[in-house]
Formats: sequence, C-alpha cells, structure tokens
Amino acid sequence: MIILGIDPGIAIMGIGIVNYEGNQFKPVYYGVIKTESKMATDQRLRVIYEELNKLIDTYNPEVVAIEELFFNNNAKTAFVVGQARGVAILSAANKLKEVYEYTPLQVKQGVVGYGRADKNQVQQMIKTLLCLEAIPKPDDAADALAVAICHAHSGNFKNLFKIK
Amino acid sequence: MIILGIDPGIAIMGIGIVNYEGNQFKPVYYGVIKTESKMATDQRLRVIYEELNKLIDTYNPEVVAIEELFFNNNAKTAFVVGQARGVAILSAANKLKEVYEYTPLQVKQGVVGYGRADKNQVQQMIKTLLCLEAIPKPDDAADALAVAICHAHSGNFKNLFKIK
Repeated sequence: MIILGIDPGIAIMGIGIVNYEGNQFKPVYYGVIKTESKMATDQRLRVIYEELNKLIDTYNPEVVAIEELFFNNNAKTAFVVGQARGVAILSAANKLKEVYEYTPLQVKQGVVGYGRADKNQVQQMIKTLLCLEAIPKPDDAADALAVAICHAHSGNFKNLFKIK
Repeated sequence: MIILGIDPGIAIMGIGIVNYEGNQFKPVYYGVIKTESKMATDQRLRVIYEELNKLIDTYNPEVVAIEELFFNNNAKTAFVVGQARGVAILSAANKLKEVYEYTPLQVKQGVVGYGRADKNQVQQMIKTLLCLEAIPKPDDAADALAVAICHAHSGNFKNLFKIK
C-alpha cells in the first residue's frame, strides 16, 4: 500500500511517500513543496495544489494522511496554515483519495509507540523503519514520513481516525 | 465590471456578485454555499471548490474579493475556516482571476464610508446601492455583497489591497 503523508505548511509543506507491504516499509519519495513569502497568497496556494496534484499522479498513493496541527492560540498563523492545509486536502479529495488526519500525539504514538516521544526519537525510528543511512532532511519531510508511517501502523483502526 | 465577493466559511460561504458600471451597481447573483457538519472535511472542501468553480464559470467575474477574517485567538476556528478560505482562493486563482482581500474594517469603510458602521447600516447601504426591495438574506450573502461593493469603491486604490 502506498501512503502519502503530509506535514502541512504554507512556506514549506513536507511530503513523505512510503510503500507498506507485509509489515515492511520502503521509502518511495520524500521532500518539500516550498513557496516564497514574497509571492501572493493565491499563487502560493496554486503552487501547492499543482505540485501535490503532480505528486499524486506520479506515485498514485492509495491513501493520504495529513497532520492536524495545533496552535497555541495563534489564530493568525492557524488561519494562514489552514488555507494551505485546505488546498492539500482538496488535492487529495479531487483525486478521489481517502484522507485521514492524525494529531501530533497520534503520530508519535504511531511511529515510536509512545505519545511523548521527542523529535529525535521519532526521526531515529523513521531512519530505522525505512532502512535509511541517515535521518531524512529537512525536518518537514521527516515529519511527513512520520505521518505516513503512523497511518500504516494505525491501519486496523483507520475508521477511528477517518477525517471528520 | 463583474465582481465576485466572498464571505468565507466552512458551513456557510456567502457569495455576492455585482456588476459595477458607470458608478452604478446591479445585483447579478447572491446566495450561499452550504455544507453539512456531518460531512467529512475533504468532501466539504470539495463541495465548496466545485460550487465556486461553477459560479465563476457561469458569471465570469473579472475579479474576486474575499473578506479577511479575524478570530479572537480562537485558533481552532481560524484553522477550520482557513481551510475553506484557501480552497475559495484556489478556485479563483485556478480560473486566473485576480484575488483581493479586505479586512472587515475596509469593507465597512468601503460600503458605508465609515469603518465603525454597524451591521444594519452596512445592510441598508447594500439595499440602497443595489436598488433591492429588501435587505438581502441570509447575512452571509449580504456580507459577500458588501465585500464586492467594497472592492468596486476601492477601485482606484486596488493595488494597495492586492492580496499578499
């Protein structure tokens, strides 16, 4: 099963695609979609949408898993990132992909088995599970791989996590 | 010049389309795009995107004006509404429309000429400017008409307000 994980953001959106077969992971692709802050918002959203459309067409994931972010009452940031996340969800939905969302706690739980794991533990686990020689960079790409792995590990419970 | 005004929301998105020629307004269309809270987020965003695409294809506005919302540090609401707003902006950008954003203060200023005008003053002014027999309902549609009128009145300064 090919799973596309997304760590949403407007300046940098992390992308992590893994293949999960027989309890084994293989990395398929990871990287980031970047947009410059000097670009107009409509053009930034368009770049994100088109790049994601291309990635979905290229790798044809069965499902898309996206991180649900929390903001410590920074409504302005939440509003801006929400716009980018909406466009990412739309790209997946328009390609008729199932979309699942996971909180940061669920991602840590799903990858390391421990919801309070630190960033380094999560990244080491990604490196091990994907048989990589180094921790994937940048962090946004690693975070997106974590979301994809979390979805694979939550497979049996996926209906519990279906985006609402 | 046909102007599409949008009052963004996920449950109810207000739509107001006006024709502005020779300092006169004519109402072209107003209404709302509604999505049910029991629908999955990806499907709600898809409905909003497709309905907006249809409206833009039907009425072919030259520009799209969208309200910039503020949230009193309610980051969760900002995040959810941000997703819907991102999809609305994307719909306009994909149709190669110019997109402008206005704060609530700018909308009141642009419609009534007074940034602290109350809701009723704004609605009465919309009714007068569009030569309507009654205040347009629901409020979300009236708000969207206000954004469109605000854009028309800001025409000379539009580069100042171009979405960034």
